[in-house]
Amino acid sequence: MPSSVTLGGRTFVKAACVGCGVIGAGWAARFLLNGIDVAVYDPAPGTERLLDEVLANADRAWGLLTQAPLPQRGRLTLCVELAAAVNGAQWVQESVPERLDLKRRVLPAIEAAAAPDALIGSSTSGLLPSDLQSGMRHPERFFVAHPYNPVYLLPLVELVAGRTSDSATLQLASRALTEIGMKPVIVGKEIDAFIGDRLLESVWREALWLIHDDVCDVETLDDVMRFGFGLRWAQMGLFETYRIAGGEAGMRHFLEQFGPSLAWPWTHLTDVPALDDSLIDKIGAQSDAQAKGRSVRELERIRDENLVRIMHALKAAESGEGWGAGALLKTFEAQLWSHAETATETLSLAGPLHLFSTPVSAAWIDYNGHMTEFRYLQVLGDATDALLRFIGVDAAYVANGGSYYTVESHIRHLDQVRLGDSLHAATQVLAADSKRLHLFHRLHETASGRLVATGEHLLLHVDAKRGKATAAPAEIRAKLKPLVDAHAQLPWPDGAGRHVAQGRR
Amino acid sequence: MPSSVTLGGRTFVKAACVGCGVIGAGWAARFLLNGIDVAVYDPAPGTERLLDEVLANADRAWGLLTQAPLPQRGRLTLCVELAAAVNGAQWVQESVPERLDLKRRVLPAIEAAAAPDALIGSSTSGLLPSDLQSGMRHPERFFVAHPYNPVYLLPLVELVAGRTSDSATLQLASRALTEIGMKPVIVGKEIDAFIGDRLLESVWREALWLIHDDVCDVETLDDVMRFGFGLRWAQMGLFETYRIAGGEAGMRHFLEQFGPSLAWPWTHLTDVPALDDSLIDKIGAQSDAQAKGRSVRELERIRDENLVRIMHALKAAESGEGWGAGALLKTFEAQLWSHAETATETLSLAGPLHLFSTPVSAAWIDYNGHMTEFRYLQVLGDATDALLRFIGVDAAYVANGGSYYTVESHIRHLDQVRLGDSLHAATQVLAADSKRLHLFHRLHETASGRLVATGEHLLLHVDAKRGKATAAPAEIRAKLKPLVDAHAQLPWPDGAGRHVAQGRR
Repeated sequence: MPSSVTLGGRTFVKAACVGCGVIGAGWAARFLLNGIDVAVYDPAPGTERLLDEVLANADRAWGLLTQAPLPQRGRLTLCVELAAAVNGAQWVQESVPERLDLKRRVLPAIEAAAAPDALIGSSTSGLLPSDLQSGMRHPERFFVAHPYNPVYLLPLVELVAGRTSDSATLQLASRALTEIGMKPVIVGKEIDAFIGDRLLESVWREALWLIHDDVCDVETLDDVMRFGFGLRWAQMGLFETYRIAGGEAGMRHFLEQFGPSLAWPWTHLTDVPALDDSLIDKIGAQSDAQAKGRSVRELERIRDENLVRIMHALKAAESGEGWGAGALLKTFEAQLWSHAETATETLSLAGPLHLFSTPVSAAWIDYNGHMTEFRYLQVLGDATDALLRFIGVDAAYVANGGSYYTVESHIRHLDQVRLGDSLHAATQVLAADSKRLHLFHRLHETASGRLVATGEHLLLHVDAKRGKATAAPAEIRAKLKPLVDAHAQLPWPDGAGRHVAQGRR
Repeated sequence: MPSSVTLGGRTFVKAACVGCGVIGAGWAARFLLNGIDVAVYDPAPGTERLLDEVLANADRAWGLLTQAPLPQRGRLTLCVELAAAVNGAQWVQESVPERLDLKRRVLPAIEAAAAPDALIGSSTSGLLPSDLQSGMRHPERFFVAHPYNPVYLLPLVELVAGRTSDSATLQLASRALTEIGMKPVIVGKEIDAFIGDRLLESVWREALWLIHDDVCDVETLDDVMRFGFGLRWAQMGLFETYRIAGGEAGMRHFLEQFGPSLAWPWTHLTDVPALDDSLIDKIGAQSDAQAKGRSVRELERIRDENLVRIMHALKAAESGEGWGAGALLKTFEAQLWSHAETATETLSLAGPLHLFSTPVSAAWIDYNGHMTEFRYLQVLGDATDALLRFIGVDAAYVANGGSYYTVESHIRHLDQVRLGDSLHAATQVLAADSKRLHLFHRLHETASGRLVATGEHLLLHVDAKRGKATAAPAEIRAKLKPLVDAHAQLPWPDGAGRHVAQGRR
């Protein structure tokens, strides 16, 4: 399955990343994982190694992030000429170092080699798009698309138009970014550092003073954030949080109370701290102590897993509808499912069906390093869902009120599973009638082929709106029948039809 | 089980909350849930109603937060005299409005009625402890304990000493706060607004300018936070995040790059925005639009559930050890378990055992509003864990390498469960020998008594270090024997010993 992302009404098939540090490589990963081919141009030494590392992190993180069907990964090409990278790309993302003169040299070179209708985005975190585009011949298709690290996980992109940018360009870019799982926001007017980095810069300057003045060390400052307001801002921002703090008296009353304190000198920010050797050494030493010997690679892994966990937590929030970054992930996954072609239609029915596979999520691991007992039922349930989709019980069918509910399960735990393992299910239909569906899954560890569990399940077709078991409609039964007939020829599985503690006592 | 929190070597049995707005009520909830009696003094009208609402939120949130055994909730007393509230309290927490003159009147009144060795903390978010304590006769036991809303969920407390505070007082306070699940940090020196509110104030001032200047509206600004750096700060703070951004070149190199940008005027903060009617109206209207008709009560519920979910996500992080606020929760729960008295020793064995109950967590609900299929196995597994603790297979036993692993389960799903329902298990031992344990749980919805599921499980005693099934040691078998003998007299449960799809076909 290739990219199903659209850009200007056509399929988005190629992106170019000009400049490939951590941000450029993060963009490359985000595009590739969405099935878009990527050509990279960065003459700096070490580009390939950095790209490999970022792609490995991104692969790992997305393996944990979603079980939805990803498109076939895009092809990555490293180019030695800028023109070759840019040629034929529908989106060129410039992520060269943050120097106005450099960017103003690179952008016309991109333009000279790019297709006339290619979008050209800049990852600048602070330079004004009007300044960047002023030397361009076709500045209307240029804009700032400022992402946040790690680009393959954090959804936010600030889109900023310069004076001569075409607003239609930003709308095109916004739609494409949404399709690759991101959260574009359009900044109302261009200012230095846009929105996010203005807020970050204000915190950063204040933080430097707090360290400089020995009010705290860097670990304490970080703890104040991650045990305090950081937990709030992962799900609601500043204003929504304060709306709640205002309580029933309302936001306006809350703001009026704030008036006086704004006149208090509660900030050092009228000064700029001197970031001299002594302050740099102090922060460096405190940061080393905080890291407790963990390498940057280890911290990256921990950060990415934490981000995935937080997004998963928010995906289940607000009564299952999702909230914030979790609602975004949920929408993105629904889109991936809707894109998934039913390549399964050509499957052979002559043996158990292989419809479901998954890496073992870090969230499923217990303190012993094994997959937790109840997660087996989750994986078996996901395998059942894959079989149901195969016979036409898909999201649309369920939304219309039809479904199958599991009424009985028998699980045998045969072997341990660890993080890093992958699982796949082989599914056999044991019996079916108008209402009932009797399934048997063998759950294997993929690399070794080890049989790690079996699940035997009885499901009933239901009308979920009426809360009653009903006969499945003819179209479902028609899809089920050849499968039932074919699997009737298979041997009865070892372990099926057994009760708990049967035999071998 | 009363409070097991200690304060100065004695059991912490009574706290007084003087001033009971959202922060004071949050402190009251935090103390009560930890088994500490709370006396409240606040002459303002509406105190009782606010307290009721905050306690209801806190009860709901803690019901989702942990299944560890909480102590019996403390007793709440509303006092009409400050002296009555303070009398006999070991900790008096002052949370009156943020006016120096008011606090300087209240603190001596607290002191006059308090026990000589009572700790006296102030919730001030910005006033200097030296200014607050200067009129006190025993200022050595005074300190600032500045929490963050919602106090019953967010762990952070900034502890700040004034010039005449005794450092031993802060150490005592820090230990007690840790025991009630909080994260105290000791601020190195007193400055206006301490650490957290200095950072918040810098963001707030910048945010007001961004809205004032129409760079964005409040919803966009909040989205920049919650889809961007807010997700980072829920788990790592500013410096650890930048340590990673610095990559292998290290923190010092990263900082050196920052130097030039500090000289750029990337902040409005040299000015103070005029928070006049026009800006207040603008923010108020944008905030109304952002809330999409949700009341503050609804937003509080959503916020609290999100915070719980994020803390749960982080509890499972870093390979199950927990990270940040999740590691703190994990430690707190272990402490609760270690405090839990084995009141179960007096249970009658004449019928199925009632050892486990739980509210249905919001995290367990699917898009239909029902408890998701695999969560039944989670609850049944928790009921099995309760039975195992009852026979001596507790955390210490497992840490020593002994355990029971489930090898087989049979689940019947008999009825739906929804958010707001509570579940309890009735557990019957069907058989046991030196290695095997054969259990049957009936899972009931508590209010209605409805039987919603049954679980039949075969477990094997294992030596987890050797990865082998072994005979359980004599002390476990001795605890198991009277239970096995008693339950041998019970009728065979309906639904046990059945295979999937047996009968009724």
